[in-house]
Amino acid sequence: MAKLTNQLDGMIPISNWEPVANGIWTCELGDMSREQRYSDLAAEPPRLEAIDALSPADFPFIGETPSYLVTDGKLAVRLPAAADEQIYGFGLQFDGLKKSKKVLTLNVDHWGRGGGRTHAPVPFYISSKGYGVFFNTSRFLKVYCQVGNRKDSPNNPPPVDRNPPPDAETAPWQALPQGDAVEGHVNGRGMEVVVFSGANLMDVVRRYNLYCGGGALPPLWGLGFWHRVNAHFDASQTNAEVAEFRKKQFPLDVIGLEPGWMTYSYPCTYEWQPKRFPDPGAFARGLLKDGVRLNLWVNPYISPQSRIYEEVYPYSGSHMVWLGVVPDYHMPEARKLLVEQHTEDHLDIGISGYKVDEVDGYDFWLWPDHATFPSGTPAESMRQTYGLLMQHMLYKDLFKKNNRRTYGNVRSSNGGGSGYPFVIYSDSYNHAEYITGISTASLCGILWTPETRSAATAREWLNRLQTVCFSPMAKLNAWASSTQPWSFPEVTNAVRDVIQLRMRLLPYLYSAFADYHFNGTPPMRAMILEIGTHARNETVTKGELHGETDPYAMDKVVEATDQFMFGPSIMVAPFYGEKATEREVNLPPGDWYDFYSGRPVGSDTTITVTAEALDDRIPLFVKDGAVIPMLSRDVLNAKEASGCDLEIRHYGSADGTFELYEDDGNTFGYEQGNYRIRTLSVTAEGLTEDILTDAAPPMFGSASLKRMSRLPV
Amino acid sequence: MAKLTNQLDGMIPISNWEPVANGIWTCELGDMSREQRYSDLAAEPPRLEAIDALSPADFPFIGETPSYLVTDGKLAVRLPAAADEQIYGFGLQFDGLKKSKKVLTLNVDHWGRGGGRTHAPVPFYISSKGYGVFFNTSRFLKVYCQVGNRKDSPNNPPPVDRNPPPDAETAPWQALPQGDAVEGHVNGRGMEVVVFSGANLMDVVRRYNLYCGGGALPPLWGLGFWHRVNAHFDASQTNAEVAEFRKKQFPLDVIGLEPGWMTYSYPCTYEWQPKRFPDPGAFARGLLKDGVRLNLWVNPYISPQSRIYEEVYPYSGSHMVWLGVVPDYHMPEARKLLVEQHTEDHLDIGISGYKVDEVDGYDFWLWPDHATFPSGTPAESMRQTYGLLMQHMLYKDLFKKNNRRTYGNVRSSNGGGSGYPFVIYSDSYNHAEYITGISTASLCGILWTPETRSAATAREWLNRLQTVCFSPMAKLNAWASSTQPWSFPEVTNAVRDVIQLRMRLLPYLYSAFADYHFNGTPPMRAMILEIGTHARNETVTKGELHGETDPYAMDKVVEATDQFMFGPSIMVAPFYGEKATEREVNLPPGDWYDFYSGRPVGSDTTITVTAEALDDRIPLFVKDGAVIPMLSRDVLNAKEASGCDLEIRHYGSADGTFELYEDDGNTFGYEQGNYRIRTLSVTAEGLTEDILTDAAPPMFGSASLKRMSRLPV
Repeated sequence: MAKLTNQLDGMIPISNWEPVANGIWTCELGDMSREQRYSDLAAEPPRLEAIDALSPADFPFIGETPSYLVTDGKLAVRLPAAADEQIYGFGLQFDGLKKSKKVLTLNVDHWGRGGGRTHAPVPFYISSKGYGVFFNTSRFLKVYCQVGNRKDSPNNPPPVDRNPPPDAETAPWQALPQGDAVEGHVNGRGMEVVVFSGANLMDVVRRYNLYCGGGALPPLWGLGFWHRVNAHFDASQTNAEVAEFRKKQFPLDVIGLEPGWMTYSYPCTYEWQPKRFPDPGAFARGLLKDGVRLNLWVNPYISPQSRIYEEVYPYSGSHMVWLGVVPDYHMPEARKLLVEQHTEDHLDIGISGYKVDEVDGYDFWLWPDHATFPSGTPAESMRQTYGLLMQHMLYKDLFKKNNRRTYGNVRSSNGGGSGYPFVIYSDSYNHAEYITGISTASLCGILWTPETRSAATAREWLNRLQTVCFSPMAKLNAWASSTQPWSFPEVTNAVRDVIQLRMRLLPYLYSAFADYHFNGTPPMRAMILEIGTHARNETVTKGELHGETDPYAMDKVVEATDQFMFGPSIMVAPFYGEKATEREVNLPPGDWYDFYSGRPVGSDTTITVTAEALDDRIPLFVKDGAVIPMLSRDVLNAKEASGCDLEIRHYGSADGTFELYEDDGNTFGYEQGNYRIRTLSVTAEGLTEDILTDAAPPMFGSASLKRMSRLPV
Repeated sequence: MAKLTNQLDGMIPISNWEPVANGIWTCELGDMSREQRYSDLAAEPPRLEAIDALSPADFPFIGETPSYLVTDGKLAVRLPAAADEQIYGFGLQFDGLKKSKKVLTLNVDHWGRGGGRTHAPVPFYISSKGYGVFFNTSRFLKVYCQVGNRKDSPNNPPPVDRNPPPDAETAPWQALPQGDAVEGHVNGRGMEVVVFSGANLMDVVRRYNLYCGGGALPPLWGLGFWHRVNAHFDASQTNAEVAEFRKKQFPLDVIGLEPGWMTYSYPCTYEWQPKRFPDPGAFARGLLKDGVRLNLWVNPYISPQSRIYEEVYPYSGSHMVWLGVVPDYHMPEARKLLVEQHTEDHLDIGISGYKVDEVDGYDFWLWPDHATFPSGTPAESMRQTYGLLMQHMLYKDLFKKNNRRTYGNVRSSNGGGSGYPFVIYSDSYNHAEYITGISTASLCGILWTPETRSAATAREWLNRLQTVCFSPMAKLNAWASSTQPWSFPEVTNAVRDVIQLRMRLLPYLYSAFADYHFNGTPPMRAMILEIGTHARNETVTKGELHGETDPYAMDKVVEATDQFMFGPSIMVAPFYGEKATEREVNLPPGDWYDFYSGRPVGSDTTITVTAEALDDRIPLFVKDGAVIPMLSRDVLNAKEASGCDLEIRHYGSADGTFELYEDDGNTFGYEQGNYRIRTLSVTAEGLTEDILTDAAPPMFGSASLKRMSRLPV
């Protein structure tokens, strides 16, 4: 790595790094007395034991000193970065993983594309050199990633004449001479910086997630299929829709109601609309009898028609959103009012969770950055954390307090959010970007669903539903479109097949989430977490000077972010976009196998896959030696999965193991150790099972091996 | 106007308004001791006498109190705005004049489209109620224009249920309930706010311009035709290009050299490249002999190869741009070094001015917002004012000090910039947006050129050259394209015609600029300055709910910003865009006449105009009674215009007058009153001339009347 002096003009070398756990260091800079840390809003405290179990790793900046500066109401931090270093991350971003040579303003917003504004602009980056940095402050952060050259830095490249004299031989001019640092600042008085080291990128991300309390563990039913009905559906329409799922043998675990369920929205009352839902309790119980849970849409802005409006008014901010007041959930009084009302009207009749909408942006419908809140929390911190605050209240004060797990949606989150069982979604609806989101979310403790709403063609419909079945939440959101999984008859069977495949994979997926919770391993993950940075991850197109369209001849970097890992062994390469039925797949080093047939497909190469028939399946590839526990038969919901026997698939020729996690699927008993782990090992001789811990009854039935690939002769 | 209480929660009513001139009030809020005012960087002090000559106007907020708030390191200001009030302005914006219901971050940047970032994000708005507000602070300003509803405001509309129960009758839901104020904030300790009143919108803008020292008065040659050659042209290539203009009888007043003239660029040395320009003095003198002046491209970032690098280094900021140092021009030491070098190498050999490039953005190639500068000026203030600082140094310290007028280009400007003879340009190159820029620039003391570079078709080429001839600078910029006015032979004559028309209009145009200088009247102007807000200025398309493309059913407002006034009497409606040869023209109330034929075209109506032939002329319309002084013959440059007789055109039937301004066209003698004004009056009886002042010799010859329209029978 580059050598930096510690004496850059005006910068103060950071000397107060505190080791807080194996491979994690923090420092407080400036005056933190009035600043808020994201980690203070995390679901759980750091999982120190799990962090200690990771391979030790050294402080990454040895020989080079991060530094900081307080100037003009700002606190700026400088973290050295070498010339050959790559920077990735900064939250759920739709424009790629790599953030080298970019300037980002990390500001919670809706639909953000580029520039840093997004639903979850987590101020955490990972470096190709094997470490991560978390700016643990809930302010807008403007960050310059290897952009900017301090004049007194010893690492600056020499300038290159852009317009050399005739016959001169010079190197090509660069519009963006690379900087030797990541520099970021807040308009605030202090900042905490947390540095994570690791033996590899995955361990860096694990440490970050574990520092934030570990990953969320959804209830088993949360991993089944979700369907949200039209915003104006009533109870009988909803019941009819659920019945249709069963009649057509489509799995369904959760049905979601959109805003029309309330007496008034927007702004919201959170009270049942009696014309549409005359007996919400009976309605919810009826659904649950069939194994279907109810999820309610909300946004946080409270209507004058709500029965808690008058009481919550003093605990709300100076500005309204859609003419509803904005509760300040840093005030216990506000939380109490909401929790009591939600308990009475929702939790007590069996509501399973929420979809928390519109906690993100735009600027023109949230409060201004100079709004005031009664707790004294700055408006920008409220903007950055409102999604976290809602998740915190609903998860901790409502569900966890009652020992019931929940799973739901939220439209914004941020640093420290890994422990919340909420999945982010968007209105942006570009399929390629939605796939990219799965990878970028995996670097920063965020769950993301590329939910399906509608499609122009049957193949697009199938492609989108195939993608979403390999995401943290398999969901159709028909709030405006009134679509159903069978909306395109040509592909109805193929849609049912992929949803059934999702259900069959529940044991594998649930264990992947347990690994997220206990060890910080993201259940879906970007390819760079699997193989590190790799030449095939990106293509660089040299900029060509054009006076009107490209006056600075800027290079264009296109990353391959259209494939990702689903759990430890399955690589997903969805069809998408205009091509729709053909795509390239980068096969990393190691032997890879076709998921469906078990046939070998290649190693360390790029192949082209094609959907021959309109209803062809999503391309899935499996690592050599992979052990994948699946249900042995089709089920329609998680309830039916209980006790189901397991088919243990094995791919390739290498030996392999899988740690199958089981618990009651519904409560927080696992926090008291009430779970069960079976190690499933496959060798040439066959399948063996070891019970690592059996502090809970089995979730699934007996396991039998299915070899997917012929053994080598 | 709406009635507001003075007691909105936490807001402090502003009570310290100071009247500073007729219809102008200022107040200082918070602590201004470390804040910088744009007005401190203005070219000249306020023109108080001219302000006093305007009709008196009352303080606009009587009965309603603007207020402010200091919170969390921010200073926020709130200016009331009524429900039926429209807000326009905020600088050179490519997306329209109207800023109601928008949130803008005013931050100097390159190519900005929407959101407020632009080359000249002047923090000045005008209201349809007849007043203007100037946030006189050189910080980034985030401004919420009738966006945001304070919960304790008495003016909030009632909330409307977005998802009413079945059979309910409700008003349509609004995604953006209108706010009752303009609220803006800076991350800083203080702000000065200046309020301008006026009998009409034009007077509000006049007051703003006069407060900033009045408008720029270019030398006469600056209003001729400009051509910039390829970046790598040498002296002989440039001479050949100039000769070609003369041979083809194309007017040319200024030839511009692009970066290759220097020994090193980028970063820059400002020293002549000896292989390309072995004798710059002889080169410049040779051109001037033919009436052609030389303009030099520069950007502000200084190369280590420059002979002043070592000396300027300590007076530069912490970060480099393109690996050149960034001089801090608040330091007299830095200014002195540059002025001395520029005087010796450029001014003394007759260079007429500069094109100051890249003083604007992007974030990824300018200094970060936490950079430091030796004068202590905050990085964001440097970003907002760098274009102003460069203009100040070049105009005041170089040219004005030597009593030579200059005219040039700059790629950013800001508040207080009206007095600088620099015209903004961009790389963005969308013709429709370029036309919009002429209107938006006119509201805030900015000159803007929609310069021509290249075109896909002959008609586009002609359309663009026609537009640019009715802007503050008629220019072809061939730095990368190597185009020439005759690049499309099919339209060469039509291009020559429109450039010749520009030259013929020099007396009219020069007087319009004198009116800008002395009275603050913009030489080109948005239609709202002419006729106020008008139903035909915009069309509103109702948003239609669409779950994927328009989930909030947002209304779309399209303004008609494709026509503008050129001087007091000529309305320009260029052909542009894909339609290219057909367009609608809104004719305001009053009788309008075709410029070329004098035939009446209508009043208070919309007409369609069509180019029948490939080389048809730009649609121009003239007001009833207009008096337009033009040269009586074609000329090739401003030198040839001197002493040329005048053809005084009169349109329609009404009596009319024109104040023709004359001076030496080159020096600052006019500041000592050395100018001449002839009033040209046309009645049914004929043309009469009155000499109002004759403190300078005439610029042009004798005047004779040409009636363009038949008198009514």
